[in-house]
Amino acid sequence: MQHTYRLVVACPDRVGIVARVSQFVAEYKGWLIEASYHSDPQTGWFFMRNEIRADSLLISLREFRAAFADIASDYQMEWSLRDSTKRKRVVILASLASHCLADILYRWHSDDLYCDIPCVIANHENLRSMVEWYDIPFYCIPVGKERKAEAYTKMLALIQQHDADCVVLARYMQIIPSMILDAFSNNIINIHHSFLPSFIGANPYQKAYDRGVKLVGATCHYATEKLDKGPIIEQDVARVDHRHSRDDMVRLGKDVEKMVLARGLRYHLEDRVIVHDNKTVILG
Amino acid sequence: MQHTYRLVVACPDRVGIVARVSQFVAEYKGWLIEASYHSDPQTGWFFMRNEIRADSLLISLREFRAAFADIASDYQMEWSLRDSTKRKRVVILASLASHCLADILYRWHSDDLYCDIPCVIANHENLRSMVEWYDIPFYCIPVGKERKAEAYTKMLALIQQHDADCVVLARYMQIIPSMILDAFSNNIINIHHSFLPSFIGANPYQKAYDRGVKLVGATCHYATEKLDKGPIIEQDVARVDHRHSRDDMVRLGKDVEKMVLARGLRYHLEDRVIVHDNKTVILG
Amino acid sequence: MQHTYRLVVACPDRVGIVARVSQFVAEYKGWLIEASYHSDPQTGWFFMRNEIRADSLLISLREFRAAFADIASDYQMEWSLRDSTKRKRVVILASLASHCLADILYRWHSDDLYCDIPCVIANHENLRSMVEWYDIPFYCIPVGKERKAEAYTKMLALIQQHDADCVVLARYMQIIPSMILDAFSNNIINIHHSFLPSFIGANPYQKAYDRGVKLVGATCHYATEKLDKGPIIEQDVARVDHRHSRDDMVRLGKDVEKMVLARGLRYHLEDRVIVHDNKTVILG
Amino acid sequence: MQHTYRLVVACPDRVGIVARVSQFVAEYKGWLIEASYHSDPQTGWFFMRNEIRADSLLISLREFRAAFADIASDYQMEWSLRDSTKRKRVVILASLASHCLADILYRWHSDDLYCDIPCVIANHENLRSMVEWYDIPFYCIPVGKERKAEAYTKMLALIQQHDADCVVLARYMQIIPSMILDAFSNNIINIHHSFLPSFIGANPYQKAYDRGVKLVGATCHYATEKLDKGPIIEQDVARVDHRHSRDDMVRLGKDVEKMVLARGLRYHLEDRVIVHDNKTVILG
Repeated sequence: MQHTYRLVVACPDRVGIVARVSQFVAEYKGWLIEASYHSDPQTGWFFMRNEIRADSLLISLREFRAAFADIASDYQMEWSLRDSTKRKRVVILASLASHCLADILYRWHSDDLYCDIPCVIANHENLRSMVEWYDIPFYCIPVGKERKAEAYTKMLALIQQHDADCVVLARYMQIIPSMILDAFSNNIINIHHSFLPSFIGANPYQKAYDRGVKLVGATCHYATEKLDKGPIIEQDVARVDHRHSRDDMVRLGKDVEKMVLARGLRYHLEDRVIVHDNKTVILG
Repeated sequence: MQHTYRLVVACPDRVGIVARVSQFVAEYKGWLIEASYHSDPQTGWFFMRNEIRADSLLISLREFRAAFADIASDYQMEWSLRDSTKRKRVVILASLASHCLADILYRWHSDDLYCDIPCVIANHENLRSMVEWYDIPFYCIPVGKERKAEAYTKMLALIQQHDADCVVLARYMQIIPSMILDAFSNNIINIHHSFLPSFIGANPYQKAYDRGVKLVGATCHYATEKLDKGPIIEQDVARVDHRHSRDDMVRLGKDVEKMVLARGLRYHLEDRVIVHDNKTVILG
Repeated sequence: MQHTYRLVVACPDRVGIVARVSQFVAEYKGWLIEASYHSDPQTGWFFMRNEIRADSLLISLREFRAAFADIASDYQMEWSLRDSTKRKRVVILASLASHCLADILYRWHSDDLYCDIPCVIANHENLRSMVEWYDIPFYCIPVGKERKAEAYTKMLALIQQHDADCVVLARYMQIIPSMILDAFSNNIINIHHSFLPSFIGANPYQKAYDRGVKLVGATCHYATEKLDKGPIIEQDVARVDHRHSRDDMVRLGKDVEKMVLARGLRYHLEDRVIVHDNKTVILG
Repeated sequence: MQHTYRLVVACPDRVGIVARVSQFVAEYKGWLIEASYHSDPQTGWFFMRNEIRADSLLISLREFRAAFADIASDYQMEWSLRDSTKRKRVVILASLASHCLADILYRWHSDDLYCDIPCVIANHENLRSMVEWYDIPFYCIPVGKERKAEAYTKMLALIQQHDADCVVLARYMQIIPSMILDAFSNNIINIHHSFLPSFIGANPYQKAYDRGVKLVGATCHYATEKLDKGPIIEQDVARVDHRHSRDDMVRLGKDVEKMVLARGLRYHLEDRVIVHDNKTVILG
């Protein structure tokens, strides 16, 4: 993996942004190995992602950040600058179903997902041995109807103790309270087991079966206060027909969920996703 | 195209249906070139499609039909027997948009869709010359806010004069009145420009754009009283991203609509579709 | 999982096969829950798969087999009759790469693949702990340039001791000798990491990269004497573009390989695959 | 359609290219509405496409071109600057098959393909009336075994008289002579009816059928001296199975061919394709 700095910017669009930023980068001999820009005529915003070879830059990340602040202020930028070799810390929340969790752990273990997984938190015990095989701490926090707030307070503390940058809901199946959503805004990634906005809420495969659809889907999105209405990162579908029972749809859907979540998480880890106006810009 | 008889059956499931039917066919030396059966554990129904070489049968279609009636009655079958060389007569309703109509006409003209198209009826004049190039009669019946019933009465008369077996709504964009729906139950094929049940009703691409979905879709279904809720025949999707405007989604969606409608219509023309319980069984 | 008997037949086509077979089944009160037939005009052969509820049949599997032998002989059938609850025994061969092996083990462990996995044999040690976590015996048989025959003799003995019904080459990457191919004809399933017949042999991703293709693929096929030329069971592709390095293609391809192998293996385990004329008929 | 200038560049990679170019653009108040950059570590080349609002620029296209020449020379750029409102002139060559031609004409007529089509040249007469309905001149130049050179000389003259920018081989099915290839290097777009490099040459569907593949594909590429070996612009596939005859594959493949050619041609018309090292970079 090449050592780069990733400069990600969103700001109101106007003439000269690319010039100004790229001139700044060039001044310090920064070598761009990847750059994507998007100008949205609808909202009048501009989005940009630059990936700069770390070894080419004359200044440190810290100095870059300090020097860039003036430009950022001139252009009213929302921006971030990250070191590609600094692994994001991803806490995974799971429930009974193992497929999304197993898939992420496998990819992480095979170096296909560049991140740290400081711990997994589940509301059941059944996935403990799988997680521990990977030498990842496993915590079980049951969330009953009573004492919910207490459970989530404990969970948030645990996530923060593990210094999480983001949280993945690997089919966690519980509504996340504001307390946690607020602490990790645009950093909580959920996988919903339908092609949103079809089949919001519980039992989407049963609903898909009942409606007689010919494709089942999955949606990776950032969790927000509004259930299943957060910014969509990635979606995909698989073909089904009249021969497929609800259980077959669940089975086929699991593969779609895994793939969609893995792709969405990868975009997030590579700092490719910008959220604007409850939508995502994904800079490839 | 091979000359066959297509025997399509739906009935409550029980032991011996295939045996009884195939024995009947074999008795008259019928050679099956295609056969698909589906047993639905959920509803307890059985579905079957047999395609029999016409030249192998010792009896005529008429005699077959008469002789089979007893079996059909024993097993409480809903059934049909059709001659594959008898082209279904498809009346197409269109509005301003040409893509679905042009696609069907082209496929028909290239012998890729085996049917007759006795006429096209539109509520605007703009597609006349395209239709007439194919030597197909074109009728314009404007449907204003007033005198709607009158217009639809005229339309139904025209459809019936042309001896239609089925009606295709090639982006006709108007709600079809019961009078016509009843006359062609399960024989009115609509294309909806979204992946149903997402984005029911008007302006689905705008809604898809606003929601920030990563795939746009189309749905071919039988029109029923309930808007966009009829049995789904076929669906498909195309990938979009943040760079696509609403107009780009419309453009990409048009290709999906054409393909999905063409496939759905083909299944219908080949007597592959059985409607049961507001879903379709499509016997391949 | 429903307890059924699966009757799979291939024979020269003629009138009355379905009638004769289904009458036989009905005579013993066999309830068909699934049936697919295919008649191939090119070769003049007929293929059939019937799935019969075990609890509906008046006779045992053994008696069924004995009684059916006469029909089979009359029609020169190649046929098999299997109990769906009898798990096939699948020995997996692996090398260094873990993705296909890990995927199969996970699906098996989640009851998504109905089979037994009596052991895994690899030519390296690196996957031992993963396999043993599933309580599956792991054997390492290195295959050097010398003493190849000896190694394969040992391997065949091991496979046979474990009573294998079939063998999966989960990216085993070695050419399988005739000795083993012959012992498990049409029961050795390979996954090739390209869309065959493109890029036969070694390093297909490098070749795909060099050619500048816009899709990479994978092919699941039965291994035969001719390298990468056996009957194809399943294929799929993933989109790539100029931004993808060879390593990216490898990464994206791994997901395609896993999916394609899992689907192909499932068809095989469900007795859906008939090999004829170096092609497969897959009765859905 | 927005009026823009498209600046497309390929050059050896080094620090500061984006800075230099974007500074140049900004100096003349050019507003970037789209920009994509690609740096290829394998070849050490850099590729860039900038789309600049024409109404924002202080200078004319001509002045821009003159002023930019210095930068281009400094960085050893291969480059082009085009006015988006200047339609490329596309001459289409066709043979008997109509599907690709009909699809392009329809898209052009619906304003979905932004170009002029000064004429269609075919080696048969059968498509004349379809072409003439669109008010496009149709020429028939039969190419027999004898007098081939004469026919192609006439064809090249015709293409040049019509001031073509590029040539589309809409299933033209003849090998194009060097004389024409050289005159339109990287501007002759072919559609091959297979997923290259599978099934090079004649009768790819027959070969696909014989091999028993589970997907059929199509490839849009620039024609070069080496048959079916030119730089690939776009590819796609469609699923087939044992029920599909060779003719079914042809039918399903036609839809893939049309879609792939239309997408490839669109990329070309929008100046998104850069050819380097017999591959394409497609700047989205």
